[in-house]
Order: sequence, then structure tokens, then C-alpha cells
Amino acid sequence: MEAAARVIARRGVRGLRVEELAAEAGVSTALIYYHFKDRTGILRATLEFISDRAERYTTERDPGAEPLDPRSELEQSLLLELQDTPTVRENSTAWGELRASAVFDPDLREELARATLIWVQEVAELLGQVRPMATATALAAAAERLTALLEGLSVRWLSGGLPLEHARELMAGAVDAELARLRG
Amino acid sequence: MEAAARVIARRGVRGLRVEELAAEAGVSTALIYYHFKDRTGILRATLEFISDRAERYTTERDPGAEPLDPRSELEQSLLLELQDTPTVRENSTAWGELRASAVFDPDLREELARATLIWVQEVAELLGQVRPMATATALAAAAERLTALLEGLSVRWLSGGLPLEHARELMAGAVDAELARLRG
Repeated sequence: MEAAARVIARRGVRGLRVEELAAEAGVSTALIYYHFKDRTGILRATLEFISDRAERYTTERDPGAEPLDPRSELEQSLLLELQDTPTVRENSTAWGELRASAVFDPDLREELARATLIWVQEVAELLGQVRPMATATALAAAAERLTALLEGLSVRWLSGGLPLEHARELMAGAVDAELARLRG
Repeated sequence: MEAAARVIARRGVRGLRVEELAAEAGVSTALIYYHFKDRTGILRATLEFISDRAERYTTERDPGAEPLDPRSELEQSLLLELQDTPTVRENSTAWGELRASAVFDPDLREELARATLIWVQEVAELLGQVRPMATATALAAAAERLTALLEGLSVRWLSGGLPLEHARELMAGAVDAELARLRG
């Protein structure tokens, strides 16, 4: 799965060749087909892998660290997707590619919708901890906007059109705007 | 250019074959190479074409129509990108593809950055008509967020993960949130 995320981040979904993936993972193509059945099976498993990995790197804390207050936890969970580390860059590139390829190919749409829903629910829950009086509908809408904005900013960053620091400022500003609105 | 936007919206940037484009446009491949030099030349011209076309369909009014107030003009310019018409669907698909392909291929980055900047400036100007006391920096940041959110929502819509009506509500909500913040 790590090899698949790497290959997709390097060449895109449409450039994914099972032979290259097998070489990257150091296994035979037969083993890959045995496990994942076909190309769609590989992409589905990769999508799940990168969703789980994003959840880890946006929520993990050092064992000895003080717990964050709800607002910082919310901000961190979004801003940690905008970091210039190999893992985040690779993960965001692969996620953006899977999303973009679903415009042309319906195979992954259901999994993408499910992964997005889980992400939106997590952000809505964090928003709800900061704004406990807000309605579930308002929290969900704010979470949908924040996650869609993050995807939009990520692609601009990864395609060289937006400096990372500025992307982070814009994201932090959106969190402010949504929290102000939820207090409304 | 119309044929190129159509082919990109059908198969993606990476599926663009000059032979198919020539057939679609009803001309020879030699004529296409004569005009655009190479694949990158075609993509650059297509990017310009779809930017101009988006500007037209988001700003055009019926000749006899009453002029809109600044706030409606702002909302319309963003919401008209979320319409289920063949032109808007094709334009948004091709734009998203050009943006996504720039993650892997630096050739178009400069043109994309320029087209994005023009778009951001237009939205910032509309925001400034509604909030004349806001600083240029605050207007630019709000415009960057609104346009990046629109791109994020568009891809979700086009990949079947978000109903169009809901995408429009989310976008209208973001305009509210940003205008409230600019008044602040």
C-alpha cells in the first residue's frame, strides 16, 4: 500500500502500472493480482490506506504532550494536512489524484464518498466541541466547506501555485470565519 | 479550442491525443501543430480559452436585465460555476484536469497561476464593492478562499460525491461567512 501511494504520487492514477508497483513493493505482479484482484482493487485499498494514514498524522500526539484544547485540536487536524513532509506531500498528491480520476472513472466514487463522509464527520465533531450549541446541520455544512477548501488549497499548493505558508494562513482564516458563523 | 476543451473534459489531459483533437475539430493534425507547436501549446491555449469562457458565463447578463446589486453580483459570479449545463460541466472538468495535471507536470504552472490570479482579483473586486471598508489584503484572502473552495466543491460535484444543489448552498454559506468576517 505504501508502494502504491508512492507510485500514484509519482505518476498519477492513470500512470499506475502494476509492473511498476510490483517492482516498488518488491513482490511479483501475480501476488498483487492475487491480493487485489484488479486495478480497481488496488486503487480501493490504496484509498483506504491513505485515508487512514492522513487520520494518523493529523491526530497523533507525542505520548507526553499536554492534551490540546478543542479549538487547537480542530486547527491542527486541518493544518497538519498542509505540511511539507514527504508523507503528507505524497498522501495529498495521491488523494487529489484519486479524487480527480473519479471525475472520469466511476469505479472509486463510492469509496471516495465514504472516506469523505468519515472525514467530514470527524471535523464536524471537532467543530462541535468548540461550538456545543451549534446544530448538527450547521456543523456538518461548516465541516464540508473546511474539508473542500483544504482540498482546493492542497491542489494549488502541490501544483506550485500557492506557497505553503500562505495556504496555512488561508486555512486558519477559514476556521475563524466558520467558528464565528457557528457562534452567530 | 472548443474541441480541445471537449476532448479534455471527456478523457482528461493525459488522455488527450492530437489525432482525436484534430478529428473533433475537423482539421488535420498538421494544422494543429502549425498553430500550437506542441502539446503544451495546445494545453496553454485551451487553458486561456476555458478561463475566458468561464468569465463570460459567470458575468453575462441579458441585455434588458436590471443591473444586480454588488452582493448578488458576487454570489452569481461564484454560483454560476455550479450549474448543470454542458458548457459549465465541460469547462469545470477541463479546468480541474489542467489544475490536477500541473501537480505532475510543471509546463502549465505559470499560466495556471496567472489565470488563478486574475480570477482571484475579480472576486476580490466584487467583495470590495460589498465591503468598501475592508483592506485589500483581507479582500484578497477572502477571494482566494472562495475560489479555492469553489474548486474543491466542483471536483466533489463532478466526481459524483456532492449533489449540485448542496454544493451551491455550501458556496452561498461561504460567501455569507466571508462577508461577515470582512465587516468584522
